[in-house]
Amino acid sequence: MSKPFCEGEYILLQLDRKRKYLVKLERGRRFHTHKGFIELDRIVDKPEGVMVESSMGVGFYAFRPSLWDYVESYERPTQILYPKDIGFILVYTDIGPGYRVLEAGVGSGALTSFLAYHVKPTGRVYGYDVNPKFIEVARRNLERTGLLEYVELKLGDIYKGVEESDVDVAILDVPSPWLALDSVYKSLKPGGFFVSFSPTINQIEKLVESMEAHRGFLVLAVLESFTRSYKVKKGETRPETTMIAHTGYLLFARRLSSRS
Amino acid sequence: MSKPFCEGEYILLQLDRKRKYLVKLERGRRFHTHKGFIELDRIVDKPEGVMVESSMGVGFYAFRPSLWDYVESYERPTQILYPKDIGFILVYTDIGPGYRVLEAGVGSGALTSFLAYHVKPTGRVYGYDVNPKFIEVARRNLERTGLLEYVELKLGDIYKGVEESDVDVAILDVPSPWLALDSVYKSLKPGGFFVSFSPTINQIEKLVESMEAHRGFLVLAVLESFTRSYKVKKGETRPETTMIAHTGYLLFARRLSSRS
Amino acid sequence: MSKPFCEGEYILLQLDRKRKYLVKLERGRRFHTHKGFIELDRIVDKPEGVMVESSMGVGFYAFRPSLWDYVESYERPTQILYPKDIGFILVYTDIGPGYRVLEAGVGSGALTSFLAYHVKPTGRVYGYDVNPKFIEVARRNLERTGLLEYVELKLGDIYKGVEESDVDVAILDVPSPWLALDSVYKSLKPGGFFVSFSPTINQIEKLVESMEAHRGFLVLAVLESFTRSYKVKKGETRPETTMIAHTGYLLFARRLSSRS
Amino acid sequence: MSKPFCEGEYILLQLDRKRKYLVKLERGRRFHTHKGFIELDRIVDKPEGVMVESSMGVGFYAFRPSLWDYVESYERPTQILYPKDIGFILVYTDIGPGYRVLEAGVGSGALTSFLAYHVKPTGRVYGYDVNPKFIEVARRNLERTGLLEYVELKLGDIYKGVEESDVDVAILDVPSPWLALDSVYKSLKPGGFFVSFSPTINQIEKLVESMEAHRGFLVLAVLESFTRSYKVKKGETRPETTMIAHTGYLLFARRLSSRS
Repeated sequence: MSKPFCEGEYILLQLDRKRKYLVKLERGRRFHTHKGFIELDRIVDKPEGVMVESSMGVGFYAFRPSLWDYVESYERPTQILYPKDIGFILVYTDIGPGYRVLEAGVGSGALTSFLAYHVKPTGRVYGYDVNPKFIEVARRNLERTGLLEYVELKLGDIYKGVEESDVDVAILDVPSPWLALDSVYKSLKPGGFFVSFSPTINQIEKLVESMEAHRGFLVLAVLESFTRSYKVKKGETRPETTMIAHTGYLLFARRLSSRS
Repeated sequence: MSKPFCEGEYILLQLDRKRKYLVKLERGRRFHTHKGFIELDRIVDKPEGVMVESSMGVGFYAFRPSLWDYVESYERPTQILYPKDIGFILVYTDIGPGYRVLEAGVGSGALTSFLAYHVKPTGRVYGYDVNPKFIEVARRNLERTGLLEYVELKLGDIYKGVEESDVDVAILDVPSPWLALDSVYKSLKPGGFFVSFSPTINQIEKLVESMEAHRGFLVLAVLESFTRSYKVKKGETRPETTMIAHTGYLLFARRLSSRS
Repeated sequence: MSKPFCEGEYILLQLDRKRKYLVKLERGRRFHTHKGFIELDRIVDKPEGVMVESSMGVGFYAFRPSLWDYVESYERPTQILYPKDIGFILVYTDIGPGYRVLEAGVGSGALTSFLAYHVKPTGRVYGYDVNPKFIEVARRNLERTGLLEYVELKLGDIYKGVEESDVDVAILDVPSPWLALDSVYKSLKPGGFFVSFSPTINQIEKLVESMEAHRGFLVLAVLESFTRSYKVKKGETRPETTMIAHTGYLLFARRLSSRS
Repeated sequence: MSKPFCEGEYILLQLDRKRKYLVKLERGRRFHTHKGFIELDRIVDKPEGVMVESSMGVGFYAFRPSLWDYVESYERPTQILYPKDIGFILVYTDIGPGYRVLEAGVGSGALTSFLAYHVKPTGRVYGYDVNPKFIEVARRNLERTGLLEYVELKLGDIYKGVEESDVDVAILDVPSPWLALDSVYKSLKPGGFFVSFSPTINQIEKLVESMEAHRGFLVLAVLESFTRSYKVKKGETRPETTMIAHTGYLLFARRLSSRS
């Protein structure tokens, strides 16, 4: 049974599809929106999905935030991966409880959060980044989401090697993934999935070329994905006017048992 | 450590991106392809990612099948969901270990498999279908994949109600999802995610209209997604010539605490 | 031979792909941009494609505006059709010199301009709109582009009928195209192309349904088109981040000789 | 007024959206389809859009073929440009009566046909190809469509130069467009539009890089376009299942007055 809201937890106040606020549920506090304020006291002990009216009489719904709700509220010094790309990675790699996943670079920790969520409680994400600022941001983001304990954040350069071996999956979002092929090959178990995300097609091309020379991987797919949202209303249904045209390309490969 | 291949398990023999074969690893058996046969004996006790030559000298790689590899080999009396759509569902709904998920209709069991994989070991998928043939196909498919124990397959009509209550997520792929709103509302916990997949925009429109009248849900998003694959080769990189233009539209909503 | 720029004509001052200015070439005038001003005197008598430096030393190129350059600079009280849609109409309907084309509603006159450009000098566009303000805007836009003489702008409601008969092509961009089927059927020659543009799929669906009942047309295609732009730079080539996700759907049909 | 069908002309017999046949209207001839045969005598002197029944009682509509109907029936030893790309070229370049257009390579003559249609009667298309077989095919295709008189087909290598000068627009669909920059620069009038179509993004990247070094052009846009078709039926409207994912990328530029 969904338990009632407790003081101290984060909740989502949602006005409509696009306007939602991640709020810490504190006694005696008023949360201010452009549609009036909400007395948070009125939400404690209420069930999920409850409607509360603002001081201006506008209805907000209170939910427990989903992981994506948390991630959308992250501090973001870097571009983050979107659901369309995260979803593909989850489906193609079988990441689940107990998996040990190598990730570089961590950036703001968006993908890291989804990886941590799916490997917990017994798995681990080994998250590398060369930028100490990003490591700190990712730490704060993961902490608030309650997922930090499943992640080992490491300041380090994957091009130079990593400490882990025999990881189940390795995922790169770095500028020159071809420089990390040896590191990935050494740390990834035979048969393990290698995923690389790159904004330019040139990076993918150079990566594929380097992988062919390296001979330690079998490339399975290179793809990009798109999402188009709709405004749905009886007799007036149509796609939204604009969309994201590009985030990046995804490459999927598997590690061979030896460099053939 | 990735353990060596054992007699009796299913393996994937992969020639290149598109040609792959799901094969039961049996002693003394030859697996025949149009590129010659492979002596399966030579794969037992070998590590994942090993290359084996066919009788015609063509190299195949042997891997443990991913879940998607299994699903692609399913008996399919129905259209199945694709990774692009399954991935979105996983990312938006937080489905993970211990979740109790209601699904209707089960069809060939493709999405069911991914749900089962992610809710195991303690969660359950309650999978309804009105067609006994589909229930049987889904059972066989799930059995081979080893996921049947996490699924309760039920011959039944979700329009008329379901036995479960307080499920975490409800996912529909049925012709008239608007007829299932009461069933979903009753079985889904407050705050739980409701997902509906429909091939026509008319179905989505009618569903949204019915949900507005029902007043028990908040619609969060209606979207469709696309995947475009690339042929990558130095100096000759380009998208594949054709792609899937449409599978269906996805609607995401959350159940309210009461019918406001 | 491309003749030199003359005093009084409109020119395009182009800084880069996105920043361009439609300017009347007047003696003694300075054109001010955020990159400094340009002495227009220096452009008169120069050839097309000449580079002129602004007062801040920034190079602008001067060109004769294309029709699309003009249309992009139009007063636009309404949404206009984009090249992707205009192009399809031109290719599918064979509109060329001498064609008589019925258009409703004219809106800002963007499509009207392309129709006029292609039917001139002997053809005519009969452009209807129910809104006198749009008729005035379209008149001003067409006048500046020099295409007004090929267009008869008419304040009138196509749902109630039109004066023309035996036109070669009829193109609608109106809210309820199904109400105009009789008007279109009467005014269009047998075999003539009927094109309808609608932002919602509901409109297309209702139109197709009405056309089937009307029995005077054969529907050939319903489609939507997309354009994705690229940033091209050696080693850093990638699509632009956002794109137009939707303008509208196009329906193409041909008029039958009788209502079968 | 649309004139009745005459003996000897080509007509289009159209069964539905996808099944259509380009047929020469000959007295005494039967045209055979898998839905029975049609006595062509019954179409002579009839108006466009007339319905004729086959020997099996199936209704076909007779129309004058559009240019695209002709092009779809062309002999095609090469890939051809599609309406989505041809339309963009027409809209962006202002090609109209009297224009002199340089095209290389001609291939099967699909784009050539649309160029010829729009520059006639006083303009000309100068169509180069290095392959004598393609020149012959294009000649036959253009002849049947009645457009050959507006085209000068030339066996020749645009990389080595062309005979024309001061053309209004130059359009390339050749493997190495960067090798043709000098030829295009010399033959194109200042301010004239240069269009290049390439299947790979590498070609576009190399072309842009070469154009920057050449300094004789201003690049305006690089884009790709997509078309998605719909099956429209009351309550069952949905996109077609598959679509063309890729034909090529289009680059648009204008020639400068000098190599700056």
